[in-house]
Amino acid sequence: METSTPDEPVLARQDHDGVVTLCLNRPRQFNALSEELLDALQRELDSIAADPTVRCVVLAGAGKAFCAGHDLRQMRATPEAEYYRALFARCSHMMQTLQKLPVPVIARVQGIATAAGCQLVGACDLAIASDGARFAVSGINFGLFCSTPAVALSRNVSPKRSFDMLVTGRFIDAATAVDWGLINEAVPESDLDAAVQRKCDAIIAKSPAAIRHGKAMFYRQRQMTLEDAYVFAGDVMTRNMMEDDAGEGVDAFIEKRTPVWKPVSR
Amino acid sequence: METSTPDEPVLARQDHDGVVTLCLNRPRQFNALSEELLDALQRELDSIAADPTVRCVVLAGAGKAFCAGHDLRQMRATPEAEYYRALFARCSHMMQTLQKLPVPVIARVQGIATAAGCQLVGACDLAIASDGARFAVSGINFGLFCSTPAVALSRNVSPKRSFDMLVTGRFIDAATAVDWGLINEAVPESDLDAAVQRKCDAIIAKSPAAIRHGKAMFYRQRQMTLEDAYVFAGDVMTRNMMEDDAGEGVDAFIEKRTPVWKPVSR
Amino acid sequence: METSTPDEPVLARQDHDGVVTLCLNRPRQFNALSEELLDALQRELDSIAADPTVRCVVLAGAGKAFCAGHDLRQMRATPEAEYYRALFARCSHMMQTLQKLPVPVIARVQGIATAAGCQLVGACDLAIASDGARFAVSGINFGLFCSTPAVALSRNVSPKRSFDMLVTGRFIDAATAVDWGLINEAVPESDLDAAVQRKCDAIIAKSPAAIRHGKAMFYRQRQMTLEDAYVFAGDVMTRNMMEDDAGEGVDAFIEKRTPVWKPVSR
Repeated sequence: METSTPDEPVLARQDHDGVVTLCLNRPRQFNALSEELLDALQRELDSIAADPTVRCVVLAGAGKAFCAGHDLRQMRATPEAEYYRALFARCSHMMQTLQKLPVPVIARVQGIATAAGCQLVGACDLAIASDGARFAVSGINFGLFCSTPAVALSRNVSPKRSFDMLVTGRFIDAATAVDWGLINEAVPESDLDAAVQRKCDAIIAKSPAAIRHGKAMFYRQRQMTLEDAYVFAGDVMTRNMMEDDAGEGVDAFIEKRTPVWKPVSR
Repeated sequence: METSTPDEPVLARQDHDGVVTLCLNRPRQFNALSEELLDALQRELDSIAADPTVRCVVLAGAGKAFCAGHDLRQMRATPEAEYYRALFARCSHMMQTLQKLPVPVIARVQGIATAAGCQLVGACDLAIASDGARFAVSGINFGLFCSTPAVALSRNVSPKRSFDMLVTGRFIDAATAVDWGLINEAVPESDLDAAVQRKCDAIIAKSPAAIRHGKAMFYRQRQMTLEDAYVFAGDVMTRNMMEDDAGEGVDAFIEKRTPVWKPVSR
Repeated sequence: METSTPDEPVLARQDHDGVVTLCLNRPRQFNALSEELLDALQRELDSIAADPTVRCVVLAGAGKAFCAGHDLRQMRATPEAEYYRALFARCSHMMQTLQKLPVPVIARVQGIATAAGCQLVGACDLAIASDGARFAVSGINFGLFCSTPAVALSRNVSPKRSFDMLVTGRFIDAATAVDWGLINEAVPESDLDAAVQRKCDAIIAKSPAAIRHGKAMFYRQRQMTLEDAYVFAGDVMTRNMMEDDAGEGVDAFIEKRTPVWKPVSR
């Protein structure tokens, strides 16, 4: 079923100056999330989570599309409830790993991002797309409501807009995705790599420790009451202030010089 | 107090090809939600909930306005806490029934939608309005903060915008309502019925079982933590995959033909 | 460390026709929230909370900026975890006091609103800014992720936009802040005071009791499930209906005259 040759892994990893680019590499299948690809993603994300030198992750797709969701042929080949339950659990675990990762993840989107591919965009912290990219949760066209994608979509896009996409399977273009908050930016295709690099550069210029404190805090506090969120955030900020980088950052600001951050060790 | 004649029920129901149109029919009172109208709505919604042949509901209003909220004269006639408590409970139950209904509900809005009328728009899954429609939670003008409407409004529109509408009673136009996510679409009045029909057609073209799985999942998962939401959505999606329609949908896609859905039986 | 002279308090209060204007008054420090200023704010807010004659609060800043966040020099002077923990707790308490205040609070923003200054904007019920105002959660530039500001920001602005601001420290302009829901309105600097006054006038024209019922309800119900929110809101609305103002408001509407509201007494 897997059509990549042994020379072409389903997921390509590239490391450069603290930025890890993970490229979904099943272009002929529009990078559909086969079991092999889900496993490869999970493996790389787990490895990144344990690596203090990584500063930022870019999630990209090879070829014409970002990601067309699950591999429908593979799903259809084992029509058993236990198989589906395990498959969706594995996929949901990978999506949550993106959010639990200690460093920011940027989706780099071209072509289509559909169903679990659109969910991937929602599950990343940031998303930059080419002008021509299009987004849909289109499982409904195949008799399958995009329930797990809805979890990520509805945490980014307001309810009536999410519901409309889910029941009609309609595509939205990149400008609409920006307007609705599903992605951060839409740029001409020719500028896509540069725009992603600019975002990586902005993140890498910051204190590694501070970014890690912040990302871990951000999603957890959103699920708390206001009062609990403030207690938790105050605690995180206190620990952040006790890091060497906070002192260095404030000193550099007062002394009008560029701060020098410490690498994280753990 | 009720001014509709016996020949004109306060709520008109029309069934056509799986679409039920419920038309608020107190045009001289701008379709104010009298006790009789609330009861009639609840009765029809309960009947629709039990009817497996219904695919989609359109909620419309007769005359110049969609709905002007509660019937202020009727409310004023019984100034007793227990009466109000029961009235708001009945209205809130009806609003929640819209969301619990197994099929999508589309608000078809012309003229004004104010107070509980604006809440109705918020409580529907989708909303399409004519260009000239206007929306307000205007109870504050009568010394009555729109507290129950705020529940629906603030789950569609961001806090500062909701709060502004609630404390000033100001109207927003249809374009602003689209921009703020309160409605999906604003179209010329002459295109309103066609636009609503297009949305119904898009929904009816989908698997009845899948739409029902999805709507039941959508609102529940939004109130859960991310982790719980994924467990729940994965379970719903597994059950959806085990329906005949999912197999048919994927097969039709692979075979490049139009899928044939099964009616739901329960 | 405090550079205001005894003649210039760090917080200036002005009362006029039920509107209290609190003006952050450390213009040379861009109104940074020193301990003295935080305490002065808390004191005034507590006093306003107990005063039934106050109808509305305007939070403003003297000089070129609205507020540049915490006082970095003061923070750096006591690099102790317990000090920071207490400082953030005090600041978070003040931010929550804004939301618990019985009357609406309008941020009047010019120049920059950064870090805890941007949080202040988020914590107010409404915000009106001059066209040239700019907003950032820029602590990350100093090695300090804006964790407590993120609590307020992410309750106003959607996740990808909030996250982007937090990890890059980038500024957004006033038009973007309107588009993203962080503020209600951006106006020419020359119209800023008039625009704030118009909003105050709109609020003051309403029933004092109804506004107080509403604000107390608004934020609490947002943290509840839909079902609990409706029970709570129905109860608040019942109590609101039993106030004299609700009867007066409906009667005035029916009799086509201007209502006369009662002052609140407690």
